[in-house]
Amino acid sequence: MRYVVKMRDKDNVAIALHDISKGTVIDGGITVNDNVPQAHKIALVDVPKGGSVLRYGVVLGYAKEDISKGDWINENSLILPKSPALDELEYGTEIDEDLPEPPRKTFMGYEVPGNEYAGTRNILGIQTTVQCVVGILNVAVKRMKEELLPKYPNVDDIVVISHAYGCGVAIDAPEAKVPIRAIRNIMKNPNFGGELMVVGLGCEKLTPDKIMEKRDINDDNFLLLQDHPGLKPIMAAIMEMAEKKLKVLDKRRRVELPISKLSVGMQCGGSDAFSGVTANPAAGYASDMLVQGGATVMFSEVTEVRDGVPFIAQRVLDKPNCDKLAKEMSWYDNYLQAGGVDRSANPSPGNKAGGLSTIVEKSMGSIAKSGAAPVSQVVSAGEIPSRHGLIFNATPASDFVCGTMQLASGMGVQVFMTGRGTPYNLEAAPVIKVCSRTDLKDFWKGLIDINAGSIATGEKTVQEVGTEIFNMIIDTASGKKPVAEDLGLFNDICIFNPAPIT
Amino acid sequence: MRYVVKMRDKDNVAIALHDISKGTVIDGGITVNDNVPQAHKIALVDVPKGGSVLRYGVVLGYAKEDISKGDWINENSLILPKSPALDELEYGTEIDEDLPEPPRKTFMGYEVPGNEYAGTRNILGIQTTVQCVVGILNVAVKRMKEELLPKYPNVDDIVVISHAYGCGVAIDAPEAKVPIRAIRNIMKNPNFGGELMVVGLGCEKLTPDKIMEKRDINDDNFLLLQDHPGLKPIMAAIMEMAEKKLKVLDKRRRVELPISKLSVGMQCGGSDAFSGVTANPAAGYASDMLVQGGATVMFSEVTEVRDGVPFIAQRVLDKPNCDKLAKEMSWYDNYLQAGGVDRSANPSPGNKAGGLSTIVEKSMGSIAKSGAAPVSQVVSAGEIPSRHGLIFNATPASDFVCGTMQLASGMGVQVFMTGRGTPYNLEAAPVIKVCSRTDLKDFWKGLIDINAGSIATGEKTVQEVGTEIFNMIIDTASGKKPVAEDLGLFNDICIFNPAPIT
Ligand SMILES: [Ca+2]
Ligand SMILES: [Ca+2]
Ligand SMILES: [Ca+2]
Ligand SMILES: [Ca+2]
Ligand SMILES: [Ca+2]
Repeated sequence: MRYVVKMRDKDNVAIALHDISKGTVIDGGITVNDNVPQAHKIALVDVPKGGSVLRYGVVLGYAKEDISKGDWINENSLILPKSPALDELEYGTEIDEDLPEPPRKTFMGYEVPGNEYAGTRNILGIQTTVQCVVGILNVAVKRMKEELLPKYPNVDDIVVISHAYGCGVAIDAPEAKVPIRAIRNIMKNPNFGGELMVVGLGCEKLTPDKIMEKRDINDDNFLLLQDHPGLKPIMAAIMEMAEKKLKVLDKRRRVELPISKLSVGMQCGGSDAFSGVTANPAAGYASDMLVQGGATVMFSEVTEVRDGVPFIAQRVLDKPNCDKLAKEMSWYDNYLQAGGVDRSANPSPGNKAGGLSTIVEKSMGSIAKSGAAPVSQVVSAGEIPSRHGLIFNATPASDFVCGTMQLASGMGVQVFMTGRGTPYNLEAAPVIKVCSRTDLKDFWKGLIDINAGSIATGEKTVQEVGTEIFNMIIDTASGKKPVAEDLGLFNDICIFNPAPIT
Repeated sequence: MRYVVKMRDKDNVAIALHDISKGTVIDGGITVNDNVPQAHKIALVDVPKGGSVLRYGVVLGYAKEDISKGDWINENSLILPKSPALDELEYGTEIDEDLPEPPRKTFMGYEVPGNEYAGTRNILGIQTTVQCVVGILNVAVKRMKEELLPKYPNVDDIVVISHAYGCGVAIDAPEAKVPIRAIRNIMKNPNFGGELMVVGLGCEKLTPDKIMEKRDINDDNFLLLQDHPGLKPIMAAIMEMAEKKLKVLDKRRRVELPISKLSVGMQCGGSDAFSGVTANPAAGYASDMLVQGGATVMFSEVTEVRDGVPFIAQRVLDKPNCDKLAKEMSWYDNYLQAGGVDRSANPSPGNKAGGLSTIVEKSMGSIAKSGAAPVSQVVSAGEIPSRHGLIFNATPASDFVCGTMQLASGMGVQVFMTGRGTPYNLEAAPVIKVCSRTDLKDFWKGLIDINAGSIATGEKTVQEVGTEIFNMIIDTASGKKPVAEDLGLFNDICIFNPAPIT
């Protein structure tokens, strides 16, 4: 029987996989000195008073008193490390270039001329400039799926990029740049194959020049309902443009491509005490393999990682990106404060009962899904990275908002870690669901792709499940459908709009 | 030929229905002294320097110099009236109780036990606590529409109340009360017949106690996906609850009811220079008939009416509601300011070219759709009024957000005035489209219900078109489908959330 799991080589604590009774001799022949609850920490070595307690390779805190090998370490055992201010972040001090080799170096994707990333699906994306057009577009898309899509069998789907932005908004508000950037960039997602189809009304504030290149604003790519005399001509114009695009998209074929053409998003939601022990570290291992293979991997969720920011900064390669990291965090601090919300950063009683002793430990569980690779770039929500490798993409943690904003940043596949279970999926890119506990995989039949709970039961290692996730990413990118895609479960597109509605 | 239109009896200006050349003798035998562009104002009497210029029965400004009968009055002719501060608003000074009698006093609606308002449609509404569940619900609703709905022919539709709220939000932010109130109240819309069906995930922040009465939180009305072992049991539970609700709803029958059981929302969008001349005043006349008949009529769109607030206040019946009006306006001023936006209140060059001389005149065009009735109550966005009559419902102007929030306030029919044209409609309640110009009705075939442009051409009066709108409201409330409903065009539900996303 396996009792504990150690997250990183340099850690001096391990995590209890079950409730462990005092006196039990665990992995490595250590005798446990206390009754230790599941998901809590056990000292692997003696730690003198004032010594560092390390999990995820970082200092969670310093020993209040001498800690003996086998002791239970909880929130009462630790003095918090000083949290450096955002303007004092150190960068580049923990650059780990020794990443695991990916077992496969290629996938079968759709190349897009001029795009850094290749598509994982072949989708006609129809961008809207305003919610007004959605009623007509939904009817049109139903007709397209019945009348047109069967004629173009190489096209997987038709997706309307629906949003409540575009009008009735403060278009010149400073933060309007966030939704506008997202709307502009989501059209460039490689799954849409570089084909543009933009449908507007005609009197909205979000004019085409705000979201399209001048050369693209023409009758081939852009139509306004108010330019067409009535419903029949509108429908005819939409159907005609769609069919032209479908004809082009239908010629796309999957080809073998290096994984450097792949962009993968990492996210978690409904986390539990085991998310940071099983699912997130395994995803982090897959992430490291992807990065080692030259792919782009994004992790996000500002509010989740906020208190571990110094440990992200240490992995950032250069000063401009460290400064950008600080700027994004500070932007979000201000955004929450303006909304009358404090960060509620301290672990809740539930977190502590779940073994999370400090605010740093809580954030590190979320950051674990980014593996150990250096952070090559920090981007704003909805921005497209200009570098490959590991990217911190500063989106909200909200599942659908994070997913939408990662789509705008070019994501072809998302990996989603869950402790509680969610049917979450995106229509524009497939989402792989990884659960943190075997219970959930067993209970929620048919809704979870990969069980990382096998790490907790000792059946598999983080590396094994990580490799499984890596392989599923490659298979999914190459066309295999995760469960939610297979079942046709899709969440709404939810663009992040921090600017006022008018 | 008819040259001008006068908005109210006490006005001393009329509006040019076409470009009018100097020297033309217009209605009432007045000779025009200037070349007057369409939609601009012409003096009907001599106005001495400092005298009031009245349109919509209110002072737009004071004459800079002596104005002669037949003169063109534009932004250069007027000195602005002092705009009173929000804490100095006068109420109750312009109470007009002499409203037009409605030609019909009843409609055929669906009574809802315990609800002030009767339904205009018979719909199964499925409330979500979080976007996570929408993927599964969409699949379930497709099945319901194929397998269940045909068995219950008295039920019109099944509507998922989808929103991006519920998780990944600052649930305790001060302004979170706005979306929470809207989600709670939209379920009570009379078109859902008092039946509750709430679907959640299980780990979201928007717990059922936040949106339901304690007595309603039970297995009959509320289910969590995480409580069911896998997709098949989830689907079975959803389908079973839906069928139970459909059985109850199918027993509903339309009965003849007094129009006091009706709640009507007024809104405009894509306005032009004629909206305030034709469509909005005609809608205001219909509104007055409804109010006279004891119905509830809501007008909204804070940013649109902001600069005419003193003229709303004058029609407010009591101090508490005048104070509430000031509070809502001031809340919105602060909300915009926090987002870095100023009110951009002055008429734009386009507005001025369209004949709108002052910020008051611009707002009065929007307020015109509220007719002349007293304002019996002011409510916050998403709040359910406790009085009948004319209600100012302080929602954003954004079409889909205003529509959604009016649904939450109990609206059974919306009337939507448009100058530019929009296919906008709501799935949970029908929307009647009224256009401001005959051009648009002719051009946008099959997308507009009523042409108020016939007022500008002189074919009809405001009273005639107003009566036409009134009759269409009664017919629509009784089951007749406006064009957009008949075509199945529906916009997304867009809940107003001024609180931060996390
Ligand atoms: Ca390493
Ligand atoms: Ca998340
Ligand atoms: Ca939708
Ligand atoms: Ca009167
Ligand atoms: Ca509007």
